[in-house]
Amino acid sequence: MTGEFETIERLRRLLPGPPAGETWIGDDAAVVVAPIGAMLLAADVVVAGVHADLSFCGLDDLGWKALSVNVSDIAAMGGTPTHALVAVAGPPDTDLEALYRGIAEAVDFYGCPVVGGDLSTADQLVVSITVLGDAGSRPPVLRAGALPGDTIFVTGPLGSSAAGLAALQAGRADDVPELARAHRRPVARVKEGCCARRAGATAMVDISDGLAADLRHLADASGVGLAIDHVPTADGATVQQALGGGEDYELAFTATNPGHVAASFAEAGLRQPIPIGRCTSDPTERAFGEGDLPHAGWQHEWAL
Amino acid sequence: MTGEFETIERLRRLLPGPPAGETWIGDDAAVVVAPIGAMLLAADVVVAGVHADLSFCGLDDLGWKALSVNVSDIAAMGGTPTHALVAVAGPPDTDLEALYRGIAEAVDFYGCPVVGGDLSTADQLVVSITVLGDAGSRPPVLRAGALPGDTIFVTGPLGSSAAGLAALQAGRADDVPELARAHRRPVARVKEGCCARRAGATAMVDISDGLAADLRHLADASGVGLAIDHVPTADGATVQQALGGGEDYELAFTATNPGHVAASFAEAGLRQPIPIGRCTSDPTERAFGEGDLPHAGWQHEWAL
Repeated sequence: MTGEFETIERLRRLLPGPPAGETWIGDDAAVVVAPIGAMLLAADVVVAGVHADLSFCGLDDLGWKALSVNVSDIAAMGGTPTHALVAVAGPPDTDLEALYRGIAEAVDFYGCPVVGGDLSTADQLVVSITVLGDAGSRPPVLRAGALPGDTIFVTGPLGSSAAGLAALQAGRADDVPELARAHRRPVARVKEGCCARRAGATAMVDISDGLAADLRHLADASGVGLAIDHVPTADGATVQQALGGGEDYELAFTATNPGHVAASFAEAGLRQPIPIGRCTSDPTERAFGEGDLPHAGWQHEWAL
Repeated sequence: MTGEFETIERLRRLLPGPPAGETWIGDDAAVVVAPIGAMLLAADVVVAGVHADLSFCGLDDLGWKALSVNVSDIAAMGGTPTHALVAVAGPPDTDLEALYRGIAEAVDFYGCPVVGGDLSTADQLVVSITVLGDAGSRPPVLRAGALPGDTIFVTGPLGSSAAGLAALQAGRADDVPELARAHRRPVARVKEGCCARRAGATAMVDISDGLAADLRHLADASGVGLAIDHVPTADGATVQQALGGGEDYELAFTATNPGHVAASFAEAGLRQPIPIGRCTSDPTERAFGEGDLPHAGWQHEWAL
């Protein structure tokens, strides 16, 4: 067995170190330079067996995902991630190096260093990450700013994570490697979120619980109705997976001037976001084509 | 059963809401005003059955403790806590209202609001809290600044948490209510940490793992020796509990000018810190009286 402090030292070596003037892992708290103005804060937890089935993904994938889901929350405000704290509770035989290898890959990909955290033993692996983000000089994009008449966009086709999990469960992941990868290694849409903010997005949310559920959150917060025409479905995914599968980590946003959105994404060299419908003035409307937007999506239940 | 979003809404009502211009619980990420200059970040996890035995403390106590241990890390840098994020993973029948009642009491006590977080189901209760702190205009006090000749102080007598747990386990907590309370409701020493920083503390650490272990961390980081004369022991605690019990959340710090420390604490109206020894120039020295500082204290073990 290896003691906690030696373990932390070994994991620290997998991660980049601080610039001059900052103190990261190893003291009581990390010391970092604060962004100027507004700061974004997100804290999401990933539980083995609840958010990730370790039969179908590695601990490195779980580490990647745990950082990505938090970065996605920062992206959904139109911000950029700056620092992460990683608290891991898990069984003593957890392969922490594999977990942190995945975290380190995500740190590198997003440019979001791990500056501190904690390690504890527990019966089940729980990875709790907090990510700080810089909102820059413009106000961040909340869920609550959509206006009647606004166009609703998503940043890409949906359902690939759910379709990937289904393929993994059916033992046919080798036939659809890109879907399996979408499930194991979701990518937060940081550039797209920043571009949507610059393009005047009025409201934004990340698609973690499923498009139908997340659009309901946005419409509830904004007090608008939803008239969804269609849902862009990833190759190999079903409409149900696109509407309710969740974990796609694309962004949904609203904007008053769709031409300005198209021009901004083109200028940034990003894939064009896909218009899927519009906001309406009836705050109770939740329309999908000729019918109703289904109540699909994931939530935990509590005995309160 | 109650859905996740309704549950979050019920818990949110136990907590204070944001000032104008900030967005707290309910969006993808919280939006807060960043401190000017250096910012402190601490993330500690509290696991039911590992860090807290729910036979001897309530869920409200566990909530209080989970915030306090993080605030203590900010205090150990000489900072003040400003914002907290709370991620809870636990069984669906967890009494979240009791947990958050304790968190809300600590929020009120420390003036450190909860601005965001997450809720997930899991087999075991794991409370992961991140606290941000303001380091103010002076540099924070690291573990690595102690100098040979510096006096070592602790902010109060030690061992009361361990003695309180022993009393609870022996069924005689009613005889020593102040010790039981020290175990259930530890208090982070924010004012003392700020005062030590103003008084020119050269290094500081909080006593969470036990005095002997935490002083070793400080001395290792600073490259100094330790010559400890005595350990102030709380009424009803043993020297062993004071040296190795941990969880006292007093602060240990070093200073070159002990007279300045005494004057600063007197001026601030705080209990005088207790000198317990001094730093020496032999970085391998770990002396306690005529013998060696014991290897006492708690750490998790990992199969790396």
